[in-house]
Amino acid sequence: MKCSKCKEKAIAYLKPYRIALCKNCYPNFYLNLVSRSIKKYGILRKVERILACVSGGKDSSAMAFALKKLGYNIEILHIDLGIKEYSVKSKKVAEELAEELDVPIHVVELSEYGFTIDDVDVKKVCSVCGTAKRYLMNRFARLNGFDVISTGHTAEDLILFFFKNVLSGGIEWIPKLIPRSESSDGLIARARPLFERSEKENMLFVLSLNVPFVTDECPHAPRDVWKEIIYDIEIKKPGFKQNFVRGLIKLAKSVKVEKEWELKKCRICGETSSSDICAFCRYVEKFGRV
Amino acid sequence: MKCSKCKEKAIAYLKPYRIALCKNCYPNFYLNLVSRSIKKYGILRKVERILACVSGGKDSSAMAFALKKLGYNIEILHIDLGIKEYSVKSKKVAEELAEELDVPIHVVELSEYGFTIDDVDVKKVCSVCGTAKRYLMNRFARLNGFDVISTGHTAEDLILFFFKNVLSGGIEWIPKLIPRSESSDGLIARARPLFERSEKENMLFVLSLNVPFVTDECPHAPRDVWKEIIYDIEIKKPGFKQNFVRGLIKLAKSVKVEKEWELKKCRICGETSSSDICAFCRYVEKFGRV
Repeated sequence: MKCSKCKEKAIAYLKPYRIALCKNCYPNFYLNLVSRSIKKYGILRKVERILACVSGGKDSSAMAFALKKLGYNIEILHIDLGIKEYSVKSKKVAEELAEELDVPIHVVELSEYGFTIDDVDVKKVCSVCGTAKRYLMNRFARLNGFDVISTGHTAEDLILFFFKNVLSGGIEWIPKLIPRSESSDGLIARARPLFERSEKENMLFVLSLNVPFVTDECPHAPRDVWKEIIYDIEIKKPGFKQNFVRGLIKLAKSVKVEKEWELKKCRICGETSSSDICAFCRYVEKFGRV
Repeated sequence: MKCSKCKEKAIAYLKPYRIALCKNCYPNFYLNLVSRSIKKYGILRKVERILACVSGGKDSSAMAFALKKLGYNIEILHIDLGIKEYSVKSKKVAEELAEELDVPIHVVELSEYGFTIDDVDVKKVCSVCGTAKRYLMNRFARLNGFDVISTGHTAEDLILFFFKNVLSGGIEWIPKLIPRSESSDGLIARARPLFERSEKENMLFVLSLNVPFVTDECPHAPRDVWKEIIYDIEIKKPGFKQNFVRGLIKLAKSVKVEKEWELKKCRICGETSSSDICAFCRYVEKFGRV
C-alpha cells in the first residue's frame, strides 16, 4: 500500500478518511485534524496558559506533543499516582517528553497526601484514581494561574462515558461531554482537543514521530468490554467514532437538566465541592497513613 | 433447563431477568412486563379507543394480542402496502388475528392512492413506506375518532432510531423517542407499549400462544448492520437493550431543541404537515398512476 500523498510506503490506511499515509505524511495530516477540531469547537486559544496533563500514555503524550507543535503555550503536569513500576516508567516518559518539547514540567506526588493508588481497595480503584487526578489537576492549575487544563481524552473515552451514563440513567452528566468548559467557581476551564481522535490515530502519531509514551497498561485497569464493543462497531461501520462523537457534542449542548449542582467550598481543603467535605479529602481520611 | 416457576421444560432462559420459563408460564411473565411499562410510563389508559396498527409481523401482532389480553379497548388497522405475496400474507394474518381476538379490523389499501410500495424506486423504498404508514395511520385514526395510535416498536427500533439520528446529527428528532405523545394539531397521540421489549421477547410470546404472524421478511428490507451491532452488544452486555432504552427515554425528555416544527395544513389533503404540500401527497404525485 502506497501513501496517497507521496507514494512512499504507507504505514496505515485510514478508512474514515479514505486515505493511506506514510510515516512522513501522517504527522501533518494528524496535526491538521487536531487544529481543525480546536478551531471549529473553540477548544483552545493561543493566548491561554495551558496546563497539559500527561499521564505518559499515548493519548496524553500525543495531546501535549500536538499542542506544542501547533504553537500553543503549554506546560506539562504529571501526577505520580504511586502505582509501583508503572508510575516510575510513566513519570520518566513525561519528563522525557517535556525535555524533548522544551517545556516546563511539574510533578505532583499523590503520596504527599498520605496515600497512593496502590493503597486503595481493588473495587474502587478507578473511581478513586479519577477523583484524585481531577482534584490535583484543578488545584495545581488554580494555584499556579493556568487558564485551562488540557487532557488527552479520545473519541472512545467520550463514547464510553456516554454509554455508561445512559445505561445508569445518569443523564445529568451528559452536558459534561462538551470539549471545552469555561472556568467558574474555582473550577478551571477544561479542554479536550483530541475528542474527535481515535486511539489508533494517536498511536500512529506517537509512533511516526517517536514521541515518548508508556506501552504498559495500568495494572489496576480492568478489562473494559465497552472498549471492545466500540472497536467492533468501528469495524462494521467505519467512521462511527468520529460521527457519533460529533453527534454527542450536539446532543450534550441540547440536554437541559433540572438538577443544578450546588457548589460549596470543602471545609478541609477549601476546594470547590458538591458536599461539605470534598471527595478527595474523604479519600485522604480513609486511605491516608498520615 | 427447567422453568423457574413450575419446573416444566423451559423454552428460554431470559438472561436480563435471570429466569427460565416454560411455554405456559412465559405469556403471563411477558404480559406483566408490558403492563408494568404501560403503567410506569403512562402509555395507555383503559378508557381510550386505541387503534392498534398491525403489519402482521411478530412485534405488532404481539402488541395487539397483549393489549387485548390486558383489557385495553383496541381495534386493528392493517395497511395493505401492495408488496406482492408479502402483503397478501400479511393481510391474511392481520385478519386472522382480529378474528381470534374478536376485535374489529380496518384495512386501508395504499393502492387507492394510485401507487403501491412496489412502484417506488429501490433506494427510497423504506423512507416512502414509513411516510405512507405514518400518514395513513394518522388520517384513519383522526377521521374515525380514535384517541391514540399504538404501534409495535421494540427496544431495538428505538435504539436504532437513536444511533442513526446521532450519527447524522439529527438531534432534533431525539425528543420523539418518548413512548407516549399526546394529540395536537391534527396529529393523533402515539403509543409504543413494547418499547422496553426485545424482538426475542415478542417472538417467544407469539410462539408460546400461537399468535398468528408473518414469518417472511419484507422483500424490500435491506440488511441492517445496526441490528446486528445491537444484537452483538446484548450478547456481551446482557440487559443492555432494556437499560439503554430506559436511559434514552430520560435523555429524550431532557433534550430541548430550538428548532420547533412549524405545522401547516397540506394544500392538497388538509392533513398536518411541515410544508405546504405534505410528503405523502408529494409521493402520490410522483409515483401515482392515477
